[in-house]
Amino acid sequence: MTRIALDMMGGDQGVESNVAGITHWFSANKNKDVHFDLFGNKPLIDSAIAKVSKFPVDLCEVHDTGERVIAPDDRPSMAIKRGGGSSMFEAISSVALGKSDAVVSSGNTGAYMALAKIVIGMMGGMERPAIVSIIPNIKGRSVMLDLGANTSCSSTQLVQFAVMGLAIARVMLGLHSPSVGILNIGTERSKGTEVLDEAYKILARARHIKFVGFVEGTDIMAGTSDVIVTDGFPGNVSLKTMEGVIRYLTYLTKNEIENSILCKIGYLFCRKMVSSIKDAIDPRRHNGAPFVGLQKIAVKSHGNSDAIGFAQAISAAIKLAESDFIASISKALLTIKTEPPNENSNK
Amino acid sequence: MTRIALDMMGGDQGVESNVAGITHWFSANKNKDVHFDLFGNKPLIDSAIAKVSKFPVDLCEVHDTGERVIAPDDRPSMAIKRGGGSSMFEAISSVALGKSDAVVSSGNTGAYMALAKIVIGMMGGMERPAIVSIIPNIKGRSVMLDLGANTSCSSTQLVQFAVMGLAIARVMLGLHSPSVGILNIGTERSKGTEVLDEAYKILARARHIKFVGFVEGTDIMAGTSDVIVTDGFPGNVSLKTMEGVIRYLTYLTKNEIENSILCKIGYLFCRKMVSSIKDAIDPRRHNGAPFVGLQKIAVKSHGNSDAIGFAQAISAAIKLAESDFIASISKALLTIKTEPPNENSNK
Repeated sequence: MTRIALDMMGGDQGVESNVAGITHWFSANKNKDVHFDLFGNKPLIDSAIAKVSKFPVDLCEVHDTGERVIAPDDRPSMAIKRGGGSSMFEAISSVALGKSDAVVSSGNTGAYMALAKIVIGMMGGMERPAIVSIIPNIKGRSVMLDLGANTSCSSTQLVQFAVMGLAIARVMLGLHSPSVGILNIGTERSKGTEVLDEAYKILARARHIKFVGFVEGTDIMAGTSDVIVTDGFPGNVSLKTMEGVIRYLTYLTKNEIENSILCKIGYLFCRKMVSSIKDAIDPRRHNGAPFVGLQKIAVKSHGNSDAIGFAQAISAAIKLAESDFIASISKALLTIKTEPPNENSNK
Repeated sequence: MTRIALDMMGGDQGVESNVAGITHWFSANKNKDVHFDLFGNKPLIDSAIAKVSKFPVDLCEVHDTGERVIAPDDRPSMAIKRGGGSSMFEAISSVALGKSDAVVSSGNTGAYMALAKIVIGMMGGMERPAIVSIIPNIKGRSVMLDLGANTSCSSTQLVQFAVMGLAIARVMLGLHSPSVGILNIGTERSKGTEVLDEAYKILARARHIKFVGFVEGTDIMAGTSDVIVTDGFPGNVSLKTMEGVIRYLTYLTKNEIENSILCKIGYLFCRKMVSSIKDAIDPRRHNGAPFVGLQKIAVKSHGNSDAIGFAQAISAAIKLAESDFIASISKALLTIKTEPPNENSNK
């Protein structure tokens, strides 16, 4: 049986949305052997459960954490000092103590990462955690990291992120032999910083890694590599740029449709297409990536997740918990460290 | 009379496209008092001119530079060593010698910048050049820099780029009192690097600068500020991410339309909308931004510019040449240097 700890108080949309998320997950996964430990304000959770039909009561146990919550704007340092007893802290602890196999929260990212790092602990040899996202592209989906946990990374950290990203691509995207590229300002070998050059050298000589070299911003959604490794700063800028472009184009489209009867008619014919494109870029459908480098599985769900998004994050956590995710990363990290340079290293 | 030097050999689409660009520009600007100096292989230019009707022969003088060209993949160092006599070099020299008011080239960006920096020279006090682009947004257009000339910048450089960007926004976008923001991984004052923090402090206390603080990737196309200042690395990644998202969505849309008869019908009703959106994001329509920090005006046209793009770059060069662009930047740079901190500096 897979046991998942859920922080019921996290996310902008509150307890009810998270309860609806569990219900939504259950509607599509009736025969899964899963147990949920729900952490949060019991009266609020119970009242939210009472409002929905078909909530899987038998799979769930509620653990009351009273009024204690981590607020969306709490600083990580504050969360560490005063977060004890909160729903997020208790859900993380459940995994740390081995009572659960994975934890899911839509709460404050910085606080979640800081608490997970301390309570669960980093994997041996991992220097820094990273934020990951699943990005749609022309060929399917890719894994991108770091998206903002670190403003600057060493070459060793970038290589560790590559290993992590490849493990995530295997488990979450089901890819047998995923490839990885380093995000740079050009694909030429001479481009970029010394740190990137050093990371390039290490990845190029790692025999078990399918390394495509440097990739550019245009390559992310072209699907040039299955994993894109980057410093947190450009990674964060890139991810938010994507969101911005999609919002801009959505705005232009809506504006045009509103101002033209012809477009309104055309839209009636294209509704299926529009919803199919919306689906492809819907962040809810790609929700739920683990923090990278922890000893156990902690899945981050978007802060603005609704029921569909939270259900997706639960699915991601179960998938990771049922895989050999942590073990395979440890093994891969070890392989890279002990690997001698091979003869074809200078690509 | 405004005199523009044109590198006729630059750009992926060659001489004929540049000749067509001049013709296209002329068709919309019949009464402008402009003289063009065309640098390149005279036989090729003449043969391209012979193929188009309505080429404004009276406005143009061809200067033969024979076979000498800068190739798209020439390294900047190589361009400096061996670029003398090439069409790009001669066009730049024409501005440096005061024979032309501005130069336009669609050629090799790195080589163009390196040659311009040496032949024209940097403005007094300016440390590094920057690559600029005009980006469409929900409110109109914005100026973004640096987009890849520098992999990392000092706070002084970022502030100088801000001043340059504001001058470009005034002249090229016609904004009376443009605002500027610093691209970061969050809008909170505490986010980012020390360099960004330092640049923030300087801009926040500059009385004559409308500073909106830190902006994120999502703000670029939301039009939160008229000028976006960034390190070249995230700037380049962001610009190329935009291109990538647009390509991805175009791919999805085409794919859907091809596979559905309903969509094909809908498309007929929406054609005007689609072309209007295409126009809004068409890089040709925003083509032609000057290199930043030079003593004279050197406009970079996209490498893949066609006639429409090249015509747009010519218009941009004329606009800049007819403004007090260089003088106003010098003045603004001086103002910032000598400005005492004001009382409302800590925003």
